[in-house]
Amino acid sequence: MTTQLLNGNLLAKEIKNEISNIIEKKILNENKRMPHLGIILTGNNSSSITYVNNKIKECKNIGIQYSLIHLPINTLENKLLEEIKKMNRNPYIDGFIVQLPLEKHMNQDKIILSIDPKKDVDGFHPENFGKMSLGMKAFFPATALGILTVLERYKIQIYGKHTVVIGRSRIVGRPISILMSRKNYFGNSTVTITHSKTKNIEFYTKQADIIIVAVGIPKFLKGKMIKKGAVVIDVGIHNHENKILGDVDFYSVYGRASYLTPVPGGIGPMTRVMLLKNTLMAALNNRK
Amino acid sequence: MTTQLLNGNLLAKEIKNEISNIIEKKILNENKRMPHLGIILTGNNSSSITYVNNKIKECKNIGIQYSLIHLPINTLENKLLEEIKKMNRNPYIDGFIVQLPLEKHMNQDKIILSIDPKKDVDGFHPENFGKMSLGMKAFFPATALGILTVLERYKIQIYGKHTVVIGRSRIVGRPISILMSRKNYFGNSTVTITHSKTKNIEFYTKQADIIIVAVGIPKFLKGKMIKKGAVVIDVGIHNHENKILGDVDFYSVYGRASYLTPVPGGIGPMTRVMLLKNTLMAALNNRK
Repeated sequence: MTTQLLNGNLLAKEIKNEISNIIEKKILNENKRMPHLGIILTGNNSSSITYVNNKIKECKNIGIQYSLIHLPINTLENKLLEEIKKMNRNPYIDGFIVQLPLEKHMNQDKIILSIDPKKDVDGFHPENFGKMSLGMKAFFPATALGILTVLERYKIQIYGKHTVVIGRSRIVGRPISILMSRKNYFGNSTVTITHSKTKNIEFYTKQADIIIVAVGIPKFLKGKMIKKGAVVIDVGIHNHENKILGDVDFYSVYGRASYLTPVPGGIGPMTRVMLLKNTLMAALNNRK
Repeated sequence: MTTQLLNGNLLAKEIKNEISNIIEKKILNENKRMPHLGIILTGNNSSSITYVNNKIKECKNIGIQYSLIHLPINTLENKLLEEIKKMNRNPYIDGFIVQLPLEKHMNQDKIILSIDPKKDVDGFHPENFGKMSLGMKAFFPATALGILTVLERYKIQIYGKHTVVIGRSRIVGRPISILMSRKNYFGNSTVTITHSKTKNIEFYTKQADIIIVAVGIPKFLKGKMIKKGAVVIDVGIHNHENKILGDVDFYSVYGRASYLTPVPGGIGPMTRVMLLKNTLMAALNNRK
């Protein structure tokens, strides 16, 4: 079977152009303030620093202003809460993110709860999560929104299809299982959410029309676990002996799936662009 | 096969006794203020009036004080919002509910969003919904909590089992699908959420170890749609020619399921008692 790769790089570029155009039309041409993203980074986790640098680069490319607060390792939780309060209050910041993971002495839930939901462009605050779940307007978590957008732009039908999600994390598995099954013009999938305590995971994956793998284990999903023609979305990203691997065993799934996202170049770039999209949305809300 | 009925009346009575005991020990004996539930009722929908009267009766029986605001039909939305504000501010009200459905001229989302999440004992505010979804402490919607409690008290194993939920409503299907699958001592089920756009629903129900039916169609789930020994939870309630029917076709499922909730006397009384439990929880939070 011919497997079509879902090109996240290309699609992300397309969407960045769309965002640029909207910024030009609705903000620049109307002499309004440019969108402005706040970023709070704590400690010196090298992956986090890389992620933040990439986000900054993308902001610059697209015409989104940014402010970075980098707090040193071992910063007290109270100091971080204070910086969040400042971002909440600052009228020039349209939205902001606190780069995760936090250091171990920080209470992540407390930190997330302290972010003003109206500025929570990561969509991690429970109010946004709840609104999304209940079908209200909200900031959606970037990865889940990225997956949904790939499927939508490639015109892959999800209505009435059986989607199996592997993983129930706050930022991917849980939100995408809700978004795929919601009553919406792009939704209405029948969704099974599986996880580490699921017995006989193949039983479910073999039934699936669409499989979303966000399990955090390299090469977890093998070709023999899927039915021919399934759509496979790989959310994993792992550095392994100088190679980048996903949660999908690419070579056994390729040729068996109808569509497949590569790693790298699939969901990763889509996730990054969705942060920009959420920031634009926040800015437009504020310029009304 | 012998089908055991899950007796919601009995269990609800048991839990009411537990709540009474906690009120006595932790509130009365410590000379603290009794729990106090606010109820806002709008219009003259006869079902709503019955529901509210039942809630008041249960409050009286158990030692929970209540305040009822009954707004006449055609009350302006602003007037309702004003009453909600008063309840939010009133330190004697531990928690309150706005009885649904609202009249058509009201914006239900706006009304729900105006309730202080800390007093939202119905668990309908998105902040509570989000916290529940993300594994934080929150008020859970009463029906979903009632279902979970029946399963737990009857020591029915849900860990690693396949649960199929029929219906994706805000107050039952969606929250119970999240609660069944969460990472928790009572959770870890593999959950499939099905709905009106699901094709071939039998395909899913026949696989299920546990089926939760909240579809709003009398006698929807027939015996031939389930596998022998499945646990069946019926959330429906319909008045039909002087008989009360559920979403489950009782006589064809009885003898095939291992456990079954009757209608009436199953999930109904459990739902009512969970409102009392949430109110107690709110009161204990406030008396700390």
